[in-house]
Amino acid sequence: MDIATIVGVIFGFVVIFGTIIIGGSGMMFLHIPSLIITMGGMLCATMIHFSLPQFLGIFKIIKKTIVAKIPSQSELIQKMVSYAAINRRDGALALEQEISKLSDLFVVKGLQMLVDGQEPDNIRQLMDLEIQYLQDRHSTGKKILEFMGAAAPAFGMIGTLIGLVQMLKNLDSPDQLGAGMAIALLTTFYGAFTANLIFIPLAGKLGIYSKAESTSMEMITEGICAIANGENPTAVREKLQAFISQGRREEVKANI
Amino acid sequence: MDIATIVGVIFGFVVIFGTIIIGGSGMMFLHIPSLIITMGGMLCATMIHFSLPQFLGIFKIIKKTIVAKIPSQSELIQKMVSYAAINRRDGALALEQEISKLSDLFVVKGLQMLVDGQEPDNIRQLMDLEIQYLQDRHSTGKKILEFMGAAAPAFGMIGTLIGLVQMLKNLDSPDQLGAGMAIALLTTFYGAFTANLIFIPLAGKLGIYSKAESTSMEMITEGICAIANGENPTAVREKLQAFISQGRREEVKANI
Amino acid sequence: MDIATIVGVIFGFVVIFGTIIIGGSGMMFLHIPSLIITMGGMLCATMIHFSLPQFLGIFKIIKKTIVAKIPSQSELIQKMVSYAAINRRDGALALEQEISKLSDLFVVKGLQMLVDGQEPDNIRQLMDLEIQYLQDRHSTGKKILEFMGAAAPAFGMIGTLIGLVQMLKNLDSPDQLGAGMAIALLTTFYGAFTANLIFIPLAGKLGIYSKAESTSMEMITEGICAIANGENPTAVREKLQAFISQGRREEVKANI
Amino acid sequence: MDIATIVGVIFGFVVIFGTIIIGGSGMMFLHIPSLIITMGGMLCATMIHFSLPQFLGIFKIIKKTIVAKIPSQSELIQKMVSYAAINRRDGALALEQEISKLSDLFVVKGLQMLVDGQEPDNIRQLMDLEIQYLQDRHSTGKKILEFMGAAAPAFGMIGTLIGLVQMLKNLDSPDQLGAGMAIALLTTFYGAFTANLIFIPLAGKLGIYSKAESTSMEMITEGICAIANGENPTAVREKLQAFISQGRREEVKANI
Amino acid sequence: MDIATIVGVIFGFVVIFGTIIIGGSGMMFLHIPSLIITMGGMLCATMIHFSLPQFLGIFKIIKKTIVAKIPSQSELIQKMVSYAAINRRDGALALEQEISKLSDLFVVKGLQMLVDGQEPDNIRQLMDLEIQYLQDRHSTGKKILEFMGAAAPAFGMIGTLIGLVQMLKNLDSPDQLGAGMAIALLTTFYGAFTANLIFIPLAGKLGIYSKAESTSMEMITEGICAIANGENPTAVREKLQAFISQGRREEVKANI
Repeated sequence: MDIATIVGVIFGFVVIFGTIIIGGSGMMFLHIPSLIITMGGMLCATMIHFSLPQFLGIFKIIKKTIVAKIPSQSELIQKMVSYAAINRRDGALALEQEISKLSDLFVVKGLQMLVDGQEPDNIRQLMDLEIQYLQDRHSTGKKILEFMGAAAPAFGMIGTLIGLVQMLKNLDSPDQLGAGMAIALLTTFYGAFTANLIFIPLAGKLGIYSKAESTSMEMITEGICAIANGENPTAVREKLQAFISQGRREEVKANI
Repeated sequence: MDIATIVGVIFGFVVIFGTIIIGGSGMMFLHIPSLIITMGGMLCATMIHFSLPQFLGIFKIIKKTIVAKIPSQSELIQKMVSYAAINRRDGALALEQEISKLSDLFVVKGLQMLVDGQEPDNIRQLMDLEIQYLQDRHSTGKKILEFMGAAAPAFGMIGTLIGLVQMLKNLDSPDQLGAGMAIALLTTFYGAFTANLIFIPLAGKLGIYSKAESTSMEMITEGICAIANGENPTAVREKLQAFISQGRREEVKANI
Repeated sequence: MDIATIVGVIFGFVVIFGTIIIGGSGMMFLHIPSLIITMGGMLCATMIHFSLPQFLGIFKIIKKTIVAKIPSQSELIQKMVSYAAINRRDGALALEQEISKLSDLFVVKGLQMLVDGQEPDNIRQLMDLEIQYLQDRHSTGKKILEFMGAAAPAFGMIGTLIGLVQMLKNLDSPDQLGAGMAIALLTTFYGAFTANLIFIPLAGKLGIYSKAESTSMEMITEGICAIANGENPTAVREKLQAFISQGRREEVKANI
Repeated sequence: MDIATIVGVIFGFVVIFGTIIIGGSGMMFLHIPSLIITMGGMLCATMIHFSLPQFLGIFKIIKKTIVAKIPSQSELIQKMVSYAAINRRDGALALEQEISKLSDLFVVKGLQMLVDGQEPDNIRQLMDLEIQYLQDRHSTGKKILEFMGAAAPAFGMIGTLIGLVQMLKNLDSPDQLGAGMAIALLTTFYGAFTANLIFIPLAGKLGIYSKAESTSMEMITEGICAIANGENPTAVREKLQAFISQGRREEVKANI
Repeated sequence: MDIATIVGVIFGFVVIFGTIIIGGSGMMFLHIPSLIITMGGMLCATMIHFSLPQFLGIFKIIKKTIVAKIPSQSELIQKMVSYAAINRRDGALALEQEISKLSDLFVVKGLQMLVDGQEPDNIRQLMDLEIQYLQDRHSTGKKILEFMGAAAPAFGMIGTLIGLVQMLKNLDSPDQLGAGMAIALLTTFYGAFTANLIFIPLAGKLGIYSKAESTSMEMITEGICAIANGENPTAVREKLQAFISQGRREEVKANI
């Protein structure tokens, strides 16, 4: 669970809408037709741009950027080292018991291939392919969020143009000029707000998350292949430590 | 037929023009001279930028992004596997009967070369060349749509500038200021609307479609060449499965 | 002669100025000082950016994008095949008569080297160098046109700022506000119009033209070198057909 | 300590706020709610974009761009040459005394490995890894500052939109129009000011600083490895001089 | 001396300020506080972005883009050919007399190494390093000018925001609205004018100049190394002609 994403979104809403409400005019920032033009137009453009399955996967992607949990690198190393020890002591079949305890499907798949006695090269090839599919999915998700971050202000501006034209044509009552203009500007506000607080930062977070998850999966692949090659726990630990920086290395060493 | 494109375009028009009509002023958003400046200027710039055959191919490209059908990858694998079986059982000539049943010209061309007994290397070279020509055509189409998506708002702004200059010069009757300004803004609206709902998303869809069609054609090439090499159906299936993700692989296996 | 460029420019002017004149105010869009600021400023910036010979070559470049004629690829292949036939039948010296009939200096240079009995490797090296110099020249031309397309709106905005400051300072007569503002906006109009209808599309056309001319020159180089190697007409034809797409290949074959 | 950064920031504030105060209205540019919207919104977006540890490291990064000290390249060469002399005269163990005098942890780590008698290849590998981790950290820091430089004006615009909507709705008292508009523009001012004077230039400085520190660390690595290979001081000096330009080389030679 | 740069700058000032003065209001475009905000802010941001020595080198860079003289390529070839002749006739030492006649330090350095009897490989390595340092310096200079071209309009906008806020707060006297607004717009004018006429085009010129000077230095390096290898004048001439286009090659040949 990524606390920074949740805190950022909540605080962002508090900061923006808190200021609005303190300004004594909370309700006038809620205008359903303006919301429909901005968000509806943006969603339609996204649907045209991407394929249907990609479009329907948006919410899954957004959810992932919020609830996703990257396993700690030190825990990962310790786990791999302990599997290496079991493998050396009791043989690969003894790892089958460990599989049932796991929730990470990627580790399960790797261990299963190990238990099944597949060749290390074969295991690496299949696990690398999985990593690549994950990166493709994340990269598509990032592109969708970035497109939404570009389309939302565009449709906000389109909404404002519509509002301005309508207001200017009905200029009979100059005292309503202000109110018409205020409503026209709301779509631009909706577009700018959602793009800059939600879509663009979430696209960035997805990129950072994708990099971290890929590194974890590469560490797992490296570890499982080393175990499949029958390397001893110390060798496995040294191989995986190359993935983490010098400073954090000491603490990992201490725990093993 | 890509349902997302059609739904997106229809819903996009409904959302934008629905809001306009509910605002009680549908007709004032139709102004023929403004439409001519924005769309005419954009089309002229596109004609100057690209060559005549490229320009005349625009509608064909737009049509393709809407009606194009990407064959299912599982069907493709099954079809290739069954050709491999026929080839092993009855020889390459037996495949000639299959050709007449096909509508996909790329598969027809590949099978024909197979039946003609051409070398696998030669088949691969010619089919790769076809894939490259398709990608070139799609990439040019994408550039045209992107240019239209950039030119439409530019000519929208040019139209607004013309409208503003005319309005400001004829400032005798201040009560017509609003109407003049409203008309001036219409070109910006037309440019922003067509660019963001039509041209830019369609350029994106063409890119996604191009990638999917290329992958299909690569699978067909890989399959035909494997058959030409006399590989057995199981080997053909395994080669083609490398193109699709782990999750969907099971279902393909089950069907064969 | 590229008909699309000419039609695009003419129609573009008709669309924009037709609308202006129908609006009943053609002459007020002609304001010499505004034209001088926008175009003069843009030309001065271009002169500072590029070297003097590059700057003076602008009109030659623009002319080339309009009148340039790309030789038909099928004609090129037929010509090369006929040279190969002459070379096989009567020897290289017989090609000397063909040279006098030609206007394309690049083919002349290639044939001359062939007649002079130079080594194929040497011919290829010199012709490749010529292709590279052409691409450099075109690429510089494209950069100049793109810079003009960016500078014109910038100086249009500078002109508008000058007009606004002058208008605001002389605010004694509020009834002249509109006229002053209208003139101030003219420079922005000039900049946006020339950039989007002339400079940016012409830069694009130069890129497309450059690619087509390079391909033609590569075909000529390939053909001359094949002839120099004493290959027969059929082999020359096959080599050059790799440059053109499958669909158009049949028609070329039929003509030979 | 980078004097240019400090002078630039101080002079930048003096120039901007000096002009404001001379304009006789210093206090009206301080509006706490506007500051909260612009800076708060920007910080929340940054928190959503990056991970929590990255976000919390911002101040450390900013501090580094101001107080960081790049060691002089000539001093570095002299130091390495003197270590080479000690190593040749008294053996590697004699370098242990030098370690205690040093504050640069990177040199300490290198010398310690030298004293411990590690293989030159091993030393180089570990030091290169440290250089890469530093570059990763700096590159992330640069991305954070650049994102802040893009988000600050965006939230400034969002704040202005909020202010405009509130002002337009409360248009009862036209005499307050000016004051409301002035406050609405303050957020845009805050966003533009912090982005262009602080975040964007600091991101640039971090890039320049990162390049300089990497070069220093590469020189140290090269020097320590040469010493570990038992090369004489003259050879060490010549190797390191390849890193600095010809002009400054003479002065370094003179000092040794 | 690059005539295009000087002519461009002078004509650019004449065009812009000529129009202003003819508009009868030259002095109102000179407003010292506005100039200080725009140029001062831009310089401070540049100082923060770059290191102090880089910042202090700006004027040297700007001067170079104006007064720099690229040696003619034909003269260069002739000079190298004559050195090759002297070297063959009288030996390398006879070249020492030529060195005293030269002002180009790069040629002097190359000839000196030749006279000193250094290995061609060594000469090439040192001269290539010098070329690389020159390109680094020019590339940094280009980045500084481009940053100034981006920062000037940004601080122009910041100045305008300050002016607008001050004007709107002091809205007691509506008749001063125009004058206040005019002054507020001056900073935007200063920023746009300096960026588009000075900084951005000069950055472009520096790039073109850098490429030309690099080519000259590569020709010198190639020539000196060929002479050091004892090649005859004809061979030297042929090697260097590969750097210049076919058309200009004849004239060079004629002169030798």
